[in-house]
Amino acid sequence: MRHITAADITAFEKIYRLNFVNGLPGYKPANLVGTAAPDGRTNLAIFSSVLHLGSDPAVLGMVTRPTTVPRHTYQNIKDNGGCYTLNQVPLPLAAAAHYTSANFEDESEFDACGFTADFRDGFAAPYVAESPLSIGLRLREEHAIFNGTMLLVGTVEHVYLRPDMLRPDGTLDLAAVNATAISGLDGYHQVLPPVRYGYARPGQFPKPL
Amino acid sequence: MRHITAADITAFEKIYRLNFVNGLPGYKPANLVGTAAPDGRTNLAIFSSVLHLGSDPAVLGMVTRPTTVPRHTYQNIKDNGGCYTLNQVPLPLAAAAHYTSANFEDESEFDACGFTADFRDGFAAPYVAESPLSIGLRLREEHAIFNGTMLLVGTVEHVYLRPDMLRPDGTLDLAAVNATAISGLDGYHQVLPPVRYGYARPGQFPKPL
Repeated sequence: MRHITAADITAFEKIYRLNFVNGLPGYKPANLVGTAAPDGRTNLAIFSSVLHLGSDPAVLGMVTRPTTVPRHTYQNIKDNGGCYTLNQVPLPLAAAAHYTSANFEDESEFDACGFTADFRDGFAAPYVAESPLSIGLRLREEHAIFNGTMLLVGTVEHVYLRPDMLRPDGTLDLAAVNATAISGLDGYHQVLPPVRYGYARPGQFPKPL
Repeated sequence: MRHITAADITAFEKIYRLNFVNGLPGYKPANLVGTAAPDGRTNLAIFSSVLHLGSDPAVLGMVTRPTTVPRHTYQNIKDNGGCYTLNQVPLPLAAAAHYTSANFEDESEFDACGFTADFRDGFAAPYVAESPLSIGLRLREEHAIFNGTMLLVGTVEHVYLRPDMLRPDGTLDLAAVNATAISGLDGYHQVLPPVRYGYARPGQFPKPL
């Protein structure tokens, strides 16, 4: 095994360090975050930092980078009633989703990258019409991390999903909709169907369901 | 598209709701968290909530469930200098990793589930010898979420990795070590090698590297 210390990481060239540290957690989900300014201008941005925080009520988190540079996503959420959407990225749309990370300034990433903004059921933020799983959330809490990043905590208000991805036990078949896994800053992966294991109990080594 | 509201989710049967909401983010990383009590007793637990929070310094987060029931991982971190390890789970070890979620009470999950506790370079928490990517972290911050969960923020002190997973540009080849992606609470997935896209710029639709 190769041993790399914190001092080694600090000494890495900047891009090498970004590549390396962004890969450390392992696979990450691929979500497009949809928002709108109060004047109706839309914004779309890929995030790999969405995570589950609780089921009752349903709560999801995501991490934003430091606000020392303009962040349309964060500003729109704050200015528009706390509303934002998460939209799962299927693999054939990964290149277009990655493209939303370019600095488009005044043009909406929906238009520039070829996605359709879909406003549903009176919610103030746009969904991505091309996504098989979209979630409408409202900001509940912000947690400032010591390094300038921020954890945004949102409660789930709406879920829209392709019916064929919902299994009878409530689990979601992500492989059925070709959902993408991300590694690092630039890797987009196809994922195969799962092996599933039941609730684990001492003395019973897990067997596939 | 099927539309499910927050009220629908609240009305779901409990296990159905847990399955459903845990699937909403998409794919999650599979990490085993290794800790030790001050008396040397070890603990190992699977977490799917590890995420990147920053690269300089290298910072990772993970989420613990409410501490209303005993949580050996959290208590060990607090009692043992803030030290814990993250260990990437390769797919052939997914069943054994899932098994760590059983309630073993006084027996170490390292022994019960067939993993080898490996203490390295004087660090107070054990690594998993069978893992191709292990990280030693020290707790820096705790953020209490309104629902009783907690975000633990740790700085990276050590990384140990199989040399063949480190690409020349610093990115990690997770597929080369057969790293696992998780869906929901019980789905373990094989992941194929990535398509990679370069830094995105307006006017240049991303092409595979």
